Amino acid sequence: MSFELSLNTGTTPNLNLHEAVQAAAEAGLSHIGPWRHLISGVGGAEQAEKIISGAGLKASTLCRGGFLTTNSTAGRTEALESNREAIREAATIGANELIMVVGGLPAAAHVLGGQGEGADKDIVAARDRVAKALGDLVPYAAELGVRLVLEALHPMYVADRAVLSTLGQALDLATPYPTSTVGVVVDTFHVFWDPQLQAQIQRAGHEGRLASYQICDFNLPIAHNALQSRGMMGDGYIDFASISRWVAKAGYRGCVEVEIFNEQVNNQAASLTISTMKERYEQLVLPHLNQAAGVLPASAAN
Amino acid sequence: MSFELSLNTGTTPNLNLHEAVQAAAEAGLSHIGPWRHLISGVGGAEQAEKIISGAGLKASTLCRGGFLTTNSTAGRTEALESNREAIREAATIGANELIMVVGGLPAAAHVLGGQGEGADKDIVAARDRVAKALGDLVPYAAELGVRLVLEALHPMYVADRAVLSTLGQALDLATPYPTSTVGVVVDTFHVFWDPQLQAQIQRAGHEGRLASYQICDFNLPIAHNALQSRGMMGDGYIDFASISRWVAKAGYRGCVEVEIFNEQVNNQAASLTISTMKERYEQLVLPHLNQAAGVLPASAAN
Repeated sequence: MSFELSLNTGTTPNLNLHEAVQAAAEAGLSHIGPWRHLISGVGGAEQAEKIISGAGLKASTLCRGGFLTTNSTAGRTEALESNREAIREAATIGANELIMVVGGLPAAAHVLGGQGEGADKDIVAARDRVAKALGDLVPYAAELGVRLVLEALHPMYVADRAVLSTLGQALDLATPYPTSTVGVVVDTFHVFWDPQLQAQIQRAGHEGRLASYQICDFNLPIAHNALQSRGMMGDGYIDFASISRWVAKAGYRGCVEVEIFNEQVNNQAASLTISTMKERYEQLVLPHLNQAAGVLPASAAN
Repeated sequence: MSFELSLNTGTTPNLNLHEAVQAAAEAGLSHIGPWRHLISGVGGAEQAEKIISGAGLKASTLCRGGFLTTNSTAGRTEALESNREAIREAATIGANELIMVVGGLPAAAHVLGGQGEGADKDIVAARDRVAKALGDLVPYAAELGVRLVLEALHPMYVADRAVLSTLGQALDLATPYPTSTVGVVVDTFHVFWDPQLQAQIQRAGHEGRLASYQICDFNLPIAHNALQSRGMMGDGYIDFASISRWVAKAGYRGCVEVEIFNEQVNNQAASLTISTMKERYEQLVLPHLNQAAGVLPASAAN
């Protein structure tokens, strides 16, 4: 099997882990991508593993590690410890892939409710700190068999969430490390605009680092809470046919995770959200993955 | 003289051309960057030229041409004619530089109040159409001595305003044409996030295409109208010291235009906006331009 659909629990934020697993299983999904707060919500990773496997599901990824840009020594120690905990959780729930959102500028730390860290807006230095911290985490991730999956975020989040902004930059960051320990994710919302996208997806495949494919649409207008501009596939402006073909042609055959932060989608019945995401996936994404992977003749996808 | 401060009239949207020119002159500025609707507001480019030169000012740029992504034949004809008119206006007011915002996806044309153009979300094809239309405009611009200045817009505007998203992509697009006819602009808001920024500014200078430096800050949260997230320098998260040094080191010595779309800034008294932008420019930007240009010793800028 290839291209199994997976429910990222960010898509159904009102469900706890029990409920999300049940909803995914009832919809016939084989995979789920939990966020860490759902793991702690059931008392830890061992309990979470039992809930997931007990329903016959597997974890596609764990969301998320990262936030490695702090310019304080204490903040750095804390961030590394939190990431080591995330690596342990990923290993325990059987997720090979830990999604990494690297963090924004120290000057914007307060935007996400963190401590103020002064006026530091030096993005080059922040990126250097991410590279160094990644080097500190790699041996531990390798030891536990977990892959750190670098996520380039849309540049609208560069100040507060991730100074990692393109797939090419993620691949550059990964270069010093084994492909089994550092990978990259293609998240359509974050990268669809990139003029180098096709080339960098090809490169990611060639370099053996294409670790996850996450999908959702890019809606307009940008939501009042910019994070919630992610839309159901087909509701926005992303060309899923092209990107899905590029991903499959680059050799990706793993899960496809749907991660939608969107006020309307998140607050409707989870069963409706999941059935809609299945339909849209089968209509707008899967045929193009299959065609490019050679599973179907070209005519079947058009 | 180098690095003359210029008032882009987008910063004072409540002023007509007479008022904007007067406000700039009273503040001691030598340059103004008008938008086209202010030109038509005074009856055309010849009248505008008299108003600008009559106050002892010069036009730094004309904003804006572009919107070349349409997928309809009629739309294309109309867009090219509008751009030829913009080229004539730029030549008449003595602006050597016509800023080009290339347009978004046909599927999003309705977002800016245009005609619906179907479901076309093919960004690769839209970029190809921009390249072809640019080729159609270059001979006319060359004839009139106007430089088409390609503006990479922040990727948050890729769907509705500009499929041109990075400075590198702008330089690639410019490559086939003479440097005197096609240039690029560095607008801090649009490009500050780019991991390739330093390298591409250097390249732009090396290739002789660095045609304009526009500044404003990147504010958070992103404004309800995303276009209005541009902030007064110092109010957001941009490292003006680094970018300004890169721009000056790349050989740029032209005007520095302040272009701020921001509800609060735009609605306060224009005199306050202009005096604040002068102060912030002299505090946060100019010392670093001067230092990198060798005008001042390093110690004077720190």
